[in-house]
Amino acid sequence: MQRKVRIAVIGTGRMGSVHVRNLARKIPEADLAAICDIRLEVAQPLADELGIPRVVKDYHELLADKSIEAVLIASSTDTHWFMIKDAAEAGKAIFSEKPLALDVESIDVALNAVKKAGVKLQVGFNRRFDHSFQRVREIVASGELGRPCILHIISRDPEVPNIDFMRVSGGMFLDMSIHDFDMARFQIGEIEEVYAVGNILIDDRLKEFGDVDTSLVTLKFANGAIGMIDNSRQAVFGYDQRLEVFCLDGTAVADNEVENTVRKGDRSGFHSARIPHFFMQRYAPCYVHEVRQFIECVREDKPVPVSGEDGRKAVVIGHAAWRSLRENRPVKISEYD
Amino acid sequence: MQRKVRIAVIGTGRMGSVHVRNLARKIPEADLAAICDIRLEVAQPLADELGIPRVVKDYHELLADKSIEAVLIASSTDTHWFMIKDAAEAGKAIFSEKPLALDVESIDVALNAVKKAGVKLQVGFNRRFDHSFQRVREIVASGELGRPCILHIISRDPEVPNIDFMRVSGGMFLDMSIHDFDMARFQIGEIEEVYAVGNILIDDRLKEFGDVDTSLVTLKFANGAIGMIDNSRQAVFGYDQRLEVFCLDGTAVADNEVENTVRKGDRSGFHSARIPHFFMQRYAPCYVHEVRQFIECVREDKPVPVSGEDGRKAVVIGHAAWRSLRENRPVKISEYD
Amino acid sequence: MQRKVRIAVIGTGRMGSVHVRNLARKIPEADLAAICDIRLEVAQPLADELGIPRVVKDYHELLADKSIEAVLIASSTDTHWFMIKDAAEAGKAIFSEKPLALDVESIDVALNAVKKAGVKLQVGFNRRFDHSFQRVREIVASGELGRPCILHIISRDPEVPNIDFMRVSGGMFLDMSIHDFDMARFQIGEIEEVYAVGNILIDDRLKEFGDVDTSLVTLKFANGAIGMIDNSRQAVFGYDQRLEVFCLDGTAVADNEVENTVRKGDRSGFHSARIPHFFMQRYAPCYVHEVRQFIECVREDKPVPVSGEDGRKAVVIGHAAWRSLRENRPVKISEYD
Amino acid sequence: MQRKVRIAVIGTGRMGSVHVRNLARKIPEADLAAICDIRLEVAQPLADELGIPRVVKDYHELLADKSIEAVLIASSTDTHWFMIKDAAEAGKAIFSEKPLALDVESIDVALNAVKKAGVKLQVGFNRRFDHSFQRVREIVASGELGRPCILHIISRDPEVPNIDFMRVSGGMFLDMSIHDFDMARFQIGEIEEVYAVGNILIDDRLKEFGDVDTSLVTLKFANGAIGMIDNSRQAVFGYDQRLEVFCLDGTAVADNEVENTVRKGDRSGFHSARIPHFFMQRYAPCYVHEVRQFIECVREDKPVPVSGEDGRKAVVIGHAAWRSLRENRPVKISEYD
Repeated sequence: MQRKVRIAVIGTGRMGSVHVRNLARKIPEADLAAICDIRLEVAQPLADELGIPRVVKDYHELLADKSIEAVLIASSTDTHWFMIKDAAEAGKAIFSEKPLALDVESIDVALNAVKKAGVKLQVGFNRRFDHSFQRVREIVASGELGRPCILHIISRDPEVPNIDFMRVSGGMFLDMSIHDFDMARFQIGEIEEVYAVGNILIDDRLKEFGDVDTSLVTLKFANGAIGMIDNSRQAVFGYDQRLEVFCLDGTAVADNEVENTVRKGDRSGFHSARIPHFFMQRYAPCYVHEVRQFIECVREDKPVPVSGEDGRKAVVIGHAAWRSLRENRPVKISEYD
Repeated sequence: MQRKVRIAVIGTGRMGSVHVRNLARKIPEADLAAICDIRLEVAQPLADELGIPRVVKDYHELLADKSIEAVLIASSTDTHWFMIKDAAEAGKAIFSEKPLALDVESIDVALNAVKKAGVKLQVGFNRRFDHSFQRVREIVASGELGRPCILHIISRDPEVPNIDFMRVSGGMFLDMSIHDFDMARFQIGEIEEVYAVGNILIDDRLKEFGDVDTSLVTLKFANGAIGMIDNSRQAVFGYDQRLEVFCLDGTAVADNEVENTVRKGDRSGFHSARIPHFFMQRYAPCYVHEVRQFIECVREDKPVPVSGEDGRKAVVIGHAAWRSLRENRPVKISEYD
Repeated sequence: MQRKVRIAVIGTGRMGSVHVRNLARKIPEADLAAICDIRLEVAQPLADELGIPRVVKDYHELLADKSIEAVLIASSTDTHWFMIKDAAEAGKAIFSEKPLALDVESIDVALNAVKKAGVKLQVGFNRRFDHSFQRVREIVASGELGRPCILHIISRDPEVPNIDFMRVSGGMFLDMSIHDFDMARFQIGEIEEVYAVGNILIDDRLKEFGDVDTSLVTLKFANGAIGMIDNSRQAVFGYDQRLEVFCLDGTAVADNEVENTVRKGDRSGFHSARIPHFFMQRYAPCYVHEVRQFIECVREDKPVPVSGEDGRKAVVIGHAAWRSLRENRPVKISEYD
Repeated sequence: MQRKVRIAVIGTGRMGSVHVRNLARKIPEADLAAICDIRLEVAQPLADELGIPRVVKDYHELLADKSIEAVLIASSTDTHWFMIKDAAEAGKAIFSEKPLALDVESIDVALNAVKKAGVKLQVGFNRRFDHSFQRVREIVASGELGRPCILHIISRDPEVPNIDFMRVSGGMFLDMSIHDFDMARFQIGEIEEVYAVGNILIDDRLKEFGDVDTSLVTLKFANGAIGMIDNSRQAVFGYDQRLEVFCLDGTAVADNEVENTVRKGDRSGFHSARIPHFFMQRYAPCYVHEVRQFIECVREDKPVPVSGEDGRKAVVIGHAAWRSLRENRPVKISEYD
C-alpha cells in the first residue's frame, strides 16, 4: 500500500469546506492532518463531523509542523499570495484557490518564493478537470479535427452574488472571466490580445464601483485562432457552462449538463429540467479530481497540472480585459511584460 | 427529354387532393390528364386552380381513355378493391391508397385481376418513403449493427378522428396500426404471430362499435426478432412517430421531427416546440416521393416499391390483431392461410 | 445532533461492498458497526480501508449483538430469505437486496417472520430512487397529464453476465425484468396480467437452461393502462435505461444519461458519447439514497419506501412472465393467489 | 378570388432560378409574366419547363411593359442598384436580392429613386423568414424573458466558394456577415459600434485580395445589449446556422436543423446526421415566404417587411467591420453618417 500525503487545509469557508470534505472522504491517498480557520467556531464543528484530529487558528502552526507535507489554501483572496510565500518558505507543496492575487506584483512575490523554494504549486482552476471539457481538449489535441479556428466559451452564473463580495472581487474579469481565460489557454494556447465590451444590464448597484454584469471578450491567440468569451452574472435557468472549439475539419461542442433527463410533453410542446444550479452542482467532481491529482503529484513527485504561471497569466489577461473595456480598444497582453 | 406518364386521379378528398396537387406541381415526370370525383363541386375548383384539363364524375370514363396510362385511386376505402379490379382490366398501372380493402376476400379479387392483367399496382404506404425511417432501414440492412433483435414503433395520432369515420374505418388495427404493420415488415421482414392488448382510455363513444383507442401489439418475426407497436388515438403534443431497431451490435433510432428548433430557457427549465401536428405536416414529402417513384416505375417499367401483396399482408395482420385482442391470445398469421 | 443508527452489512461482494462504502462515507446518519462475509479475506481488507471496527464470518454473531439495530443483507440470493427470517426474529430492522428469493414460498416464510416480529423490511429496488424516474412519477402523480395510458420501459444490460451466474439467476424475468416489474408498479400501480415473448438472439449457451436474452413483456394494469417492458442482455452502447409514461394529456419521458455532453461534428455528421456503462455508474446515487432513506425510516420509525410486499409482487410477476413465455399465452397474476 | 400580381424576374442564375420556380409553382398569388437574362440559353429552358410565357434578354423591355406590376431582381450584385433605379422610375414594385450594392453611394442613388417614385422595395434578407429565427424574435419581443442582454449568431458556410466569386464578393463582411448584421438588427435593433477580428485559417489564396475566412464581430447595440457574430467559410459538417438571444429572465436559442432524426448507437457512442448542407436546403422555405409576403404587400398595398433602409444599413455595418478589422479598433457606425 502506498504512503498517504499528509495535508492541511487553510480556510474552511465555502470552497475550503468543500476541499475538507473531499479530502476527508473521497481522496484516500490523502491524510487530512489539520484544518485552519481564524473562525474556530466554523472549523471545529467541521473537524468534529469528519473526525479531523487537529484544528488551528493560526496557519503558521501548520507550516511549522514538519509532518505536514502539503497545504491547501482556500482562505480569502487577499491572503493567498502571502500564505503561498510562507508555505513555500516552509517547504510545503501548495494547492491554492484562484486567483493567486488580484494584482500581479503580489503574485510575483508568491511565485518567486515558490521558485526559490523549489516546491510545487497548483492553482485551483477546477474546470480543467471537467470530463466534458477534457474530452473536447482530447479531441482537439488528437488532431483529428485539424487546426482550431474559433473558440467559444459561454459562462454565466445563475445569480448576482452578494454586493459586498462584488465590491472586492476584482470585478467581472478578475473574479469570473478568469476561469474562462484559463480555459481558453487550456483549450487553445497562449492569448496575445483581448478586446472587451461590457455593460450593466442586470444590477445597477454595480455602477458605484465600475463593474459590469454582462460582457463579451474577444481573444486573439498566438496560433492565429480567435475566440470569444460570453459572461453574465445572471442566467435564471441555471449555471450556463458551454464551450465550442471549431476547427478546420469539424467541431467539438461541450453542452450543459442536465438536472434530470425527463422531458414532459403537453399541448404547448416539450419541457425539460433546468441545468445544474451553480458550480457546487456542476463542478462537484472537478473539486475532487483536481486535489486528487495534486496529491498524486506530490506523492509521486510529478509536475502539477495547473502551474503558478497559469494562475498568473489568467490574472494578467483579466487586467488586460479591464483596460480594454475602460479604454475601448484592443489590448495586447505584451503591454504587461 | 423523357416522356411523361399520363395519369388520372380518382377521388379528390383529403388524400386525393394532396396527390392531385403533388402531381400538378411537384412531379414533373407526370402529366395529370384528369381528375375524377362523384362530387363535381369538389373536383372542379381544384382543376381550375391547378389548370387540370379534364374533370369527370364517373371513373369508367377515365379507364376508357386509352391515352391514360396510370390511375391513382384515393376514393373512399370501400371502393378501392373494385376500382383496382376495373383499372387492371382496363390495363392501367395503378397506385392505390391503403387499405386495399377491409376484408381479405375483396383484396384477393383485386389482386387476382392485377395479376391476370399483368399491370403494376403500388399501395400507398407513405411512411416507407420517410427519410429517417429509410435511413434506419439502410443502417440495419447494411449489417453494420448485426442481427436485428427488437423493433419498437410508436405511432400516435394527435386527436381522435370524427366518430362517423371511426365507425367504418376498420378500427385501430385496420385503420391506424396497418401503417405500422407495414413498417414492421419494411424494417424487419415477415411477421408470424401477433398478440394485441388494447383499451378505451380516451373516448368512451368507441365502446358502441367495439373499437379501442390505446393499444400495444407484440410481434414475432420469422427471423426470430420480436417487436412492439404502440398506438394511441390522442397525443396532445403532436403526431408522435418514432421507431427503433435494436440490434446485436447497436441500435438505430428515428426520433420525432420538430416544429422549430427553438429552446426557451427560463426559471422553470427549458421549453421546446411541439412536434408536427399530423401526417400532412410530418409526411408531406413522402406523398411526393411515393408517387414520384411510382411514376418512374411506370415510365421505366420497373417493379414498384410497395406491392399489392404488401397491401394484403398488412390487412391480414390487422385482422389477426383484432382476433388476438378479442380472444386474448396470441394469433398466428398462418391462421389466415 | 440526532442519534445514529447502528447497522451491520451481511455480504461484501459486488453489491455488498457498494453498500459498505456508502454507509462508511456517504451516510452520516448511520454507524457502520460491523460487516460479515464467509470470505473473511474479502471483508477484512474492506474493513481496514474504511476503518470498520468489526468483521465477522457468521451473521448470527451480528444478530446476537443487541447494540446493532439494523442489518443490510447483500449476500447471495439463495440466502436472503432465511437471513431475513433470522434477522426479524432477532428484532432487527432489515434492508435486503432483491430478489427476496426466487420462489414465493421462501418469500412468504420470510415475510411472515417479519410480520410476526413487527420489524421493518425494505427491499433494494434501487431504481425507485433515480431522480429522473422519480420526476416522471411526480409529474404523473400530480395529475397534470391526466390518466396514464401506456407505460414503456426499456432496460438493457451492456453485456451478457457470467454464464455460471446466469444459470442460477432465475433467468431474464426473475433476475433482470424484476426491476422493471417493480418500476411498472411504482409508476402505474398493480399489474393484473402479463404476456411475455422472448428469444435467444445473443448467446446460444442460454439454451441449455431455458433462459432468453431478449424479451418483451406486455402488461395489463388494474387501472386500465397497458404497458410494455423491453429487455436485452446486450446493449453495446451502454446500460440502456429509459422510461415513458404516456398519458391522456401528455407524456413524461426519462431518457438515458450521458457519459459526457460533448458532440463532435465532422464530415460524416455528429458523434456523442456512450451512455453510462452499467448500474454502478448509472445508479450510483440511488444506492446511497435508498439506504439513507432506510436509515431515516429506522431512526424516525416511519414506514419504509419499498416494502416486503413489493419485493414479493415483483417475484410473482416474474414467475407469471416465465409461465406466459413457456405456454405462449397471457397469464393472470391472480393465478398465483 | 383575389387578383394576382403580375411579376417578372430579372436574372435566372442560382438565386434567380429559385425565385422563378417558387413564383411558378408555390406562390399562387403571383402571375409570373416573364423572365429576363442576358444569357437566353439559360432562361429559355427554364421558361419552357415551367410554362412561362415570355423570355427577354433586356430588362428594359420588362420595365416598359405596363401590365407588369412588380420585378424581382436577382442578377449579379453590381447591377442591382441601377436596375432598382430604373425599375423605380418605371413605377414597378421591386424585390431585390442582397446586397443592394457594395458601395453606399450606389445604394443611395437607388434608394433616392425608390423614394422619389414612391414604389415599394423589399430586400432579400431571407433569414428573417426562417420559422425558428422568427420564433426567437417573437419570444423576445413578447417581453416574457425581459430585456435582451447578449446576442450570439453562428453562421458558417459549408465550404469556401469559388475563388473568382470571392474576389468580387465584397469579402467576408459584405458578402457573408451582411446576413448576420441584418439578423442582429432584426432580433435586437440598431447597432452603434462594431469591432472585428479575423484571420485566414482555411484558404491561403484569400491573402491576395485581403479577405478573411474566419471572423468574430463584436456588436454594441443602441439599447445597451452586446452581441457577437461568428463566421467561417468552412464547416465540414454542414451549414452551421445558430442563434441565441440571452435575456435578463431567460434565453431563446435556435439550434441547427437536422438532415434526419436518426441516431445510431454502437460501441463508440451515438452518431447522428449532418446538418443541412447549405442555404438551398436550410432556407428553402424562406425563399418562398419572403417573396410571397412581398406579393401580398404589393397586392394589398402594405409596407414591405424588409426595407431598402434595412438593405443599406447592413452594407454600412459591413464597411464598418472591414474598417475595424483593418485598423484593429472599434468603429462607430456614426462614422458613416
